[in-house]
Amino acid sequence: MGQGNADRVEALLFDVFGTVVDWRASLQRWFQRFGQEHHLEADWVGLVDDWRSAYEPSMARVRRGERPYVTLDTLHRESLDALLTRYRLGNVSESDRRQMTRAWRWLDPWPDTLAGLTRLKRKYVIGTLSNGGLGLLVDMAKFAGLPWDVVLSADLFQRYKPDVAVYLGAADLLARPTSALMLVAAHNYDLAAARSHGYRTAFVARPTEYGPLQKKDFGPEAVWDYAATSLEDLAEKLGA
Amino acid sequence: MGQGNADRVEALLFDVFGTVVDWRASLQRWFQRFGQEHHLEADWVGLVDDWRSAYEPSMARVRRGERPYVTLDTLHRESLDALLTRYRLGNVSESDRRQMTRAWRWLDPWPDTLAGLTRLKRKYVIGTLSNGGLGLLVDMAKFAGLPWDVVLSADLFQRYKPDVAVYLGAADLLARPTSALMLVAAHNYDLAAARSHGYRTAFVARPTEYGPLQKKDFGPEAVWDYAATSLEDLAEKLGA
Repeated sequence: MGQGNADRVEALLFDVFGTVVDWRASLQRWFQRFGQEHHLEADWVGLVDDWRSAYEPSMARVRRGERPYVTLDTLHRESLDALLTRYRLGNVSESDRRQMTRAWRWLDPWPDTLAGLTRLKRKYVIGTLSNGGLGLLVDMAKFAGLPWDVVLSADLFQRYKPDVAVYLGAADLLARPTSALMLVAAHNYDLAAARSHGYRTAFVARPTEYGPLQKKDFGPEAVWDYAATSLEDLAEKLGA
Repeated sequence: MGQGNADRVEALLFDVFGTVVDWRASLQRWFQRFGQEHHLEADWVGLVDDWRSAYEPSMARVRRGERPYVTLDTLHRESLDALLTRYRLGNVSESDRRQMTRAWRWLDPWPDTLAGLTRLKRKYVIGTLSNGGLGLLVDMAKFAGLPWDVVLSADLFQRYKPDVAVYLGAADLLARPTSALMLVAAHNYDLAAARSHGYRTAFVARPTEYGPLQKKDFGPEAVWDYAATSLEDLAEKLGA
């Protein structure tokens, strides 16, 4: 379509939470089922939204060097413990807390994800570039059938996006210049960081990611190489 | 079957060169084609065998700390340069040298590999645990259609097998104890190291890996959890 320049792109790296999987609806369903099975009533929707809200500040502490790197599994668990108390669910067992934290592995793809990735995989190396840990991402891919060629994660670099070490480290491991890589993400901040390090960029709109709480990322906030409404739309635009 | 204990195994990690792909026959074919296309005569079989022979000593220098970690691509290129001179091919161009080094990405699987991996992937997370670099392994998988769930490589840890950092680092990244992992390899030394760190082990016989030069690894040299004659045989034995 001549929208952007993807001539020399060999690999597409995907943000995962929000871009590839619908974490919010998936976790809402998981917790509603958990509540039914355990005869527990709670504001699960609020819990899920608050849990996700804790994600950014918890990573920021690592980014600012206020604590050593820990994986997202650890950050999720810590913020869950605080939230359960707040939601008067303080007597949830240790084993249930572990299962709740693992629920971030059992997320459903957006409706266009599998078809889009399958098409893109024919033409490109496709992989993750996520703040999730490698174990989480591998288990999620197995659960959801995501056909990654390679799983790249924050814990390979002990840094969280948008730290430069993640974007450059991925290029280094793939033995390619960043100009041969395209980041695909539903979040403008991530694309801006990737582009500043030489990546090509593709925005995919996920305007319902945060439900009624969504405040940004309704559309591209800069002229990215590509802007798509779904991963199938992106495959179309890239001729894949 | 009941040969070994795979009850708690969740992921199978595979040695790659020799275990999954037939590097020797593949490189022989590649160099013979290269010779024809470039009207060059040389002892390509000898060159390939000598190139592989340089692999172990070149890694050993890194392992002993005599030089900092460099990827296998770099080691391959260095030993190639020395060999080309020795084989009176010193005027091979820079760009051809780069292609020769990249030929380690274009290796054909053994006849049983794709069918075996496809079956094993249904039951287990399947991944690499190779001294090849991540970029090399990803490109090889794309070329050969190897359906890995995850690509783990020496360069993630900046150490070469059998360094403990590789075996423990893989378990750490996968967020699993080593007892949930099984190494699948055609080389007894690799299995011995993996087992000493708590891995389950499966030997796959590749008695023709080194052609007439093969001196060891004709069969299991210890009681590994499994011993198979092919990856399809291993799938059978694991009930996959």
